[in-house]
Amino acid sequence: MKLYDGGRAPNPRRVRIFLAEKGIEVPLVQVDIGKLEQKGTEFSRINPLQQVPALELDDGAIITESIAICRYFEELHPEPALFGRGALGTALVEMWQRRVEFHLLQGVQYVFRHTHPAMKEMEVPQVPAWAEATRPRVLSFLRLLDRELAGRPFIAGEEFSVADITALVAVQFMKPARIDMPEGLAHLERWYNSVAARPSASA
Amino acid sequence: MKLYDGGRAPNPRRVRIFLAEKGIEVPLVQVDIGKLEQKGTEFSRINPLQQVPALELDDGAIITESIAICRYFEELHPEPALFGRGALGTALVEMWQRRVEFHLLQGVQYVFRHTHPAMKEMEVPQVPAWAEATRPRVLSFLRLLDRELAGRPFIAGEEFSVADITALVAVQFMKPARIDMPEGLAHLERWYNSVAARPSASA
Repeated sequence: MKLYDGGRAPNPRRVRIFLAEKGIEVPLVQVDIGKLEQKGTEFSRINPLQQVPALELDDGAIITESIAICRYFEELHPEPALFGRGALGTALVEMWQRRVEFHLLQGVQYVFRHTHPAMKEMEVPQVPAWAEATRPRVLSFLRLLDRELAGRPFIAGEEFSVADITALVAVQFMKPARIDMPEGLAHLERWYNSVAARPSASA
Repeated sequence: MKLYDGGRAPNPRRVRIFLAEKGIEVPLVQVDIGKLEQKGTEFSRINPLQQVPALELDDGAIITESIAICRYFEELHPEPALFGRGALGTALVEMWQRRVEFHLLQGVQYVFRHTHPAMKEMEVPQVPAWAEATRPRVLSFLRLLDRELAGRPFIAGEEFSVADITALVAVQFMKPARIDMPEGLAHLERWYNSVAARPSASA
């Protein structure tokens, strides 16, 4: 088994943090995103969508999509449960993981890709108007998260979950995207300090 | 239990098709998207993100996000399995459901929202350049799906899954989005005819 990794990019980081929380070690193969290696012929055979991460099993089967890779490991190593427990718990983790992914992580990525000079070759065409339409929605979602976190320690409830991983990676990706955290979001700040202090956050 | 539904919109349809495949009946409450009822005060208390569908349980718990609602029912009624079986099967359904959602359904929705005159009040601001950047990616993903479907009956493998539901809804939403299906995609056409003929497709 080997994991095609992509350094500091948000999606590869999600999988590494997930594996660290589970205590699982998987051999990494670095794909150099800076050199657009994920768009080369060799990696396109592994993932025709030219995105990292990708997990290659010993029989050659390929799993792409960070959350799909995480779910594979959740099935093999159920503890600690990072996708929730029971029908309602599982649904609420899925709901929050998706809310955070669509409204925060994807939003931050759009702002980054459509405004950052370093993304000119990767994101063709850049559409700055799309970044500007997205930015206020990101800020609005951060305020919603702050209100939610007033009532519970983690994004999806009482336990740390994959939704916290997506949110952590998204908040940290606001820096290269040049989005400032709004002031006065005390609950979100408390949550952030707690998840960023976990050993997995350095994975 | 009641399901806040939204008529012909893609996400409410995904849940209704899923329930039909499972043979589950849930009382529906119609939310009038045409009148922007999902953005009103009453529905915003149910889902602050102002999106349908939403499932309200008898104890008042709310689950939003179509795929989270589907997963709730999968946990309660595992057969027929629509999220895959076993670690690899589950991961591959998740992978394909996500690929189809991000590269096809979301793309078609972006084209619709950012070009259709009827969406002027709902999508503010409309960014036509974003729709135009998205359109060729949708077509490219349809070609990829066609190549994949040369080797298997359904999107994620030998069995019908939630990935087929997302893909069916996305392909049918190409019509209001005014995206023509590229010609010559025989495998995709065979797949489409087979899933659109299932009784669940009229849900």
